[in-house]
Amino acid sequence: MGLFITFEGIEGCGKTTQIRRLAAALRQQGHDIIETREPGGCDIADQIRAVLLDAKNSRMTSPAELLLYAAARAQHVAEVIRPALDAGKTVLCDRFCDATLAYQGYGRQLDINQITTLNDYACQGVRPDATLLLDLPVEIGLGRARQRNEQHTGPNEDRFEQESLNFHQRIRQAYLRLAKDEPQRFLTIDAQGSPQTVAERIASAITSVIQPADQS
Amino acid sequence: MGLFITFEGIEGCGKTTQIRRLAAALRQQGHDIIETREPGGCDIADQIRAVLLDAKNSRMTSPAELLLYAAARAQHVAEVIRPALDAGKTVLCDRFCDATLAYQGYGRQLDINQITTLNDYACQGVRPDATLLLDLPVEIGLGRARQRNEQHTGPNEDRFEQESLNFHQRIRQAYLRLAKDEPQRFLTIDAQGSPQTVAERIASAITSVIQPADQS
Repeated sequence: MGLFITFEGIEGCGKTTQIRRLAAALRQQGHDIIETREPGGCDIADQIRAVLLDAKNSRMTSPAELLLYAAARAQHVAEVIRPALDAGKTVLCDRFCDATLAYQGYGRQLDINQITTLNDYACQGVRPDATLLLDLPVEIGLGRARQRNEQHTGPNEDRFEQESLNFHQRIRQAYLRLAKDEPQRFLTIDAQGSPQTVAERIASAITSVIQPADQS
Repeated sequence: MGLFITFEGIEGCGKTTQIRRLAAALRQQGHDIIETREPGGCDIADQIRAVLLDAKNSRMTSPAELLLYAAARAQHVAEVIRPALDAGKTVLCDRFCDATLAYQGYGRQLDINQITTLNDYACQGVRPDATLLLDLPVEIGLGRARQRNEQHTGPNEDRFEQESLNFHQRIRQAYLRLAKDEPQRFLTIDAQGSPQTVAERIASAITSVIQPADQS
């Protein structure tokens, strides 16, 4: 079985950049790496992602949203993550079950047990070996996310970046709590500073999980 | 509270035609009628319907499919069905929770308890007052469905009509079993014969549930 490593954190924490950097570094060390993300990661889940993130869908209820995340995850796990792990590959995934707990559970205040039940159903036994939590103050993260959106020409598709500061504060606290509850799985990384600085922190932390592959 | 009446049955059983006829008849009797359908019935659920029924999505796993149906239902109940019932309207719905039990439970052989849990979560307490099961032999239903599809010019969007005869036999038997388990709620209608004949059977059966409205 390969290693399954997830990346979590608030908007603008730098997950996308850091996954790309870590994937490149691990490939150089001889690892067979799959980079993927949630919601999405395969064609059907990407179609669900489009429904979830469309800013026009502001009437979406929280239970419908939760079920859509679970549906996208079920397809992604079955079609991409599990086959890759079975083939001995290392999977780096941008958001996974912890995001649902943080955003839908602590953010939207849906029932945590219900979310856990749905996550378990969607994952069918697949669990991250390690989770990198990129932590930084909400104001810095949202500032970065805003800057990124302004550089895009298309319409802002992300309903979550339109939420209040208070909502995002709850998400950050939720992630820190999840990390505290599972210290064996979580690696909490200070995500302030340059991408290079953060990448070095990640490279240092990840050595406890993954070693250079045998390139024989 | 208004009345919630659902229509169930295999492909080609005539639900769509009969809902239209019953809605017209009940409106003539003074009822305020909402006609709707699943999956779909509102904009967000229609987007989910498009993902569910797209024949290109043949890789969709059964758990993902089940979760998508639940998501569409959660949105439909919250946005359309519950508000209409709260306003005292009569809701006629083409398929509802029984369809998920029949198709995903008995057809795809997913866990019935899991389906019931998801249905309950999606419905948040809304339950049909009556369910009309339009029953007929599978060969006749599929023959009608095929004829209907050939009259359409667009691509056949319906993944379910591509399933085997055996699959549809299981669906018919599942519906009959659900009806037997809940005789108080189900009205089983012989759906063979002309649309007019079936409409008369429905009109006769439905008098136990709904009376002409007060048109004062």
